[in-house]
Amino acid sequence: MTLQPADATGVARVCIANPGKMNVLSVAMWRQLRAIFEAMNSAIDAPRVVLLHGADGHFAAGGDIAEFPDFRFEPDTLRRFHEEDVAPALRAMLDCDIPLVAQIDGACIGGGLEIAACCDLRIAGRASRFGIPIARLGFPLAPAEASIVARVLGLPLLRELLLEARLLDADAALAKGIVTRVVDDDKVAADALAAAERIAALSPQAMCLNKRLLRQLAEGGLSAAQRHEHFAYADSAEHREGLAAFMEKRDPRFQT
Amino acid sequence: MTLQPADATGVARVCIANPGKMNVLSVAMWRQLRAIFEAMNSAIDAPRVVLLHGADGHFAAGGDIAEFPDFRFEPDTLRRFHEEDVAPALRAMLDCDIPLVAQIDGACIGGGLEIAACCDLRIAGRASRFGIPIARLGFPLAPAEASIVARVLGLPLLRELLLEARLLDADAALAKGIVTRVVDDDKVAADALAAAERIAALSPQAMCLNKRLLRQLAEGGLSAAQRHEHFAYADSAEHREGLAAFMEKRDPRFQT
Amino acid sequence: MTLQPADATGVARVCIANPGKMNVLSVAMWRQLRAIFEAMNSAIDAPRVVLLHGADGHFAAGGDIAEFPDFRFEPDTLRRFHEEDVAPALRAMLDCDIPLVAQIDGACIGGGLEIAACCDLRIAGRASRFGIPIARLGFPLAPAEASIVARVLGLPLLRELLLEARLLDADAALAKGIVTRVVDDDKVAADALAAAERIAALSPQAMCLNKRLLRQLAEGGLSAAQRHEHFAYADSAEHREGLAAFMEKRDPRFQT
Repeated sequence: MTLQPADATGVARVCIANPGKMNVLSVAMWRQLRAIFEAMNSAIDAPRVVLLHGADGHFAAGGDIAEFPDFRFEPDTLRRFHEEDVAPALRAMLDCDIPLVAQIDGACIGGGLEIAACCDLRIAGRASRFGIPIARLGFPLAPAEASIVARVLGLPLLRELLLEARLLDADAALAKGIVTRVVDDDKVAADALAAAERIAALSPQAMCLNKRLLRQLAEGGLSAAQRHEHFAYADSAEHREGLAAFMEKRDPRFQT
Repeated sequence: MTLQPADATGVARVCIANPGKMNVLSVAMWRQLRAIFEAMNSAIDAPRVVLLHGADGHFAAGGDIAEFPDFRFEPDTLRRFHEEDVAPALRAMLDCDIPLVAQIDGACIGGGLEIAACCDLRIAGRASRFGIPIARLGFPLAPAEASIVARVLGLPLLRELLLEARLLDADAALAKGIVTRVVDDDKVAADALAAAERIAALSPQAMCLNKRLLRQLAEGGLSAAQRHEHFAYADSAEHREGLAAFMEKRDPRFQT
Repeated sequence: MTLQPADATGVARVCIANPGKMNVLSVAMWRQLRAIFEAMNSAIDAPRVVLLHGADGHFAAGGDIAEFPDFRFEPDTLRRFHEEDVAPALRAMLDCDIPLVAQIDGACIGGGLEIAACCDLRIAGRASRFGIPIARLGFPLAPAEASIVARVLGLPLLRELLLEARLLDADAALAKGIVTRVVDDDKVAADALAAAERIAALSPQAMCLNKRLLRQLAEGGLSAAQRHEHFAYADSAEHREGLAAFMEKRDPRFQT
């Protein structure tokens, strides 16, 4: 898990890497993912957009099973892994008010699919494949992770993936709503970067307020105070610039 | 916004019109929309079905941005626009127990997509396009409107539309579940009217009770009293006519 | 409604049969369905998977309308039919922790679609068709049934089916997410059986815990106690076998 700071366009990169193992997720990687996003959420000079991708042709192929005997056979250590390592990392992603674009090559399985589900856009290559085939390994999905993945997949599709324990190809993933779009494998990186750069040129304030609003809706709706606070953007520079640019038939410049 | 009363088949029409401006929605039009549906909801001689469409080849291309400087740069007037003009108009549509069919030509954007989302069926032409590209204008979606649009789009697709600020074409809109079906552009009006007339020939009581039930489910479920009240239709003329017609292998006549 | 006990692979069969009537569902059949699943849910020697299918080329074509005059025209008997015969049968299916695979040939309409919606997978033939055209009969969907069907269809699609009262063909049903997949009509039985047998070879414990988790999520989320209890599987034989088989690069043997 490495963070590459924002480039000139405002796009930072998070790379999932576990060389030679299709980027399977170790306990240390989950902790790094959490640290990266918790730091970003409290940073002053946050990037405009984060592009997540995997190294060497895969997104992430699930958990690092070689580590599993260390902690999976005792209820307390198993629960702590899921609730104190995995779930907080995903939660730090969900709590991020910066747009997250997932570039998905190859395997996007188990924990990899969970990470992708916490991104805002999922741009996938034609050879990518998706699933949660843990019933082959004799265990069920953890509750917090199921709840997070279901936000994107919905319960009927999550049910299908868990019970059949099969992988879906990219076209099925698109038809069933797992990914935003599918492009040729040699174009995934360029398309995902182009999407990230396009979003980076839009209003960061609108992105932040939209992400906050969508999170509030996902978590039961807004309080009266939250609804009231939402409209505080009225007199902001970005709001004025966006409308002025439209009136003047020019591209807006959202420099914050 | 004009209302054309029901024709002989029971189909009324609401036309969204702002000539020369792709039917962008002014404050006055939102108020007219609310008035039309509030009057209809309390009318004795309600139509059987309402067909909504836009004038001159478009459904509606969003808000009338020329008016925005009048009220958008002050939190109180901005909030009142969204919560006292737009949301009540959409709410009056959602509260309507008459089936609403949207005939969607051309642009169905921003407020236009919000109106379409409050209809029961969305029949779109192949050249129609859909989106909420307000991040270009520097502002986020309003909470009540987000909640209403999410009922049809779901949060993941609403997220995509808000953050990418791009338009989807009709095929993508169908694949992603925004519209009921897509037909050739020169057939949209005929197909939408045929759908409206077919529905107008079905049981108005069933339509009303189904719409009420779907609204109750969307708003958290039914109380015990509401569940009990639901079955009061047992001895109604329409219920008896529907079953009698089936037994007699003839078309039912639901004259109320 | 007949139950054929589990074969050597652990797959039991439930057959919906009402000969010469496209398997329309009589009151007696709803009661049999409930009895079959309530017995299965408390059985010691439960099957690994249940395959549901209809006799003679159809799944089930709705309610047995010939019986309707016996009870539909009085609110109390109507309510008792829906809430004490139909809903408890569907509820017994939802409460079942065994994977349920629906093999869908031909008509899957009304109550047939409700039964299919309570299965975990829906494998449909190309000639199958889907809908709830009860507005032709002058009555609305019952609340408990609407709530159950909406779990799979979502409210926008349920709205379309109820108001238009038309049938969708298999391709539309797949595109709109009603079915898991569509196969050629002469392959439905084989594909559904193959899916059932594949699932029967996976971990029964994972199936049970996943189904319980998905039900808890559908019904409002898990309590702290339920989350804690979830991880009690840590030291189980199936969990150890699943991981051991993966390490040893062999197929797991989940013999319980």
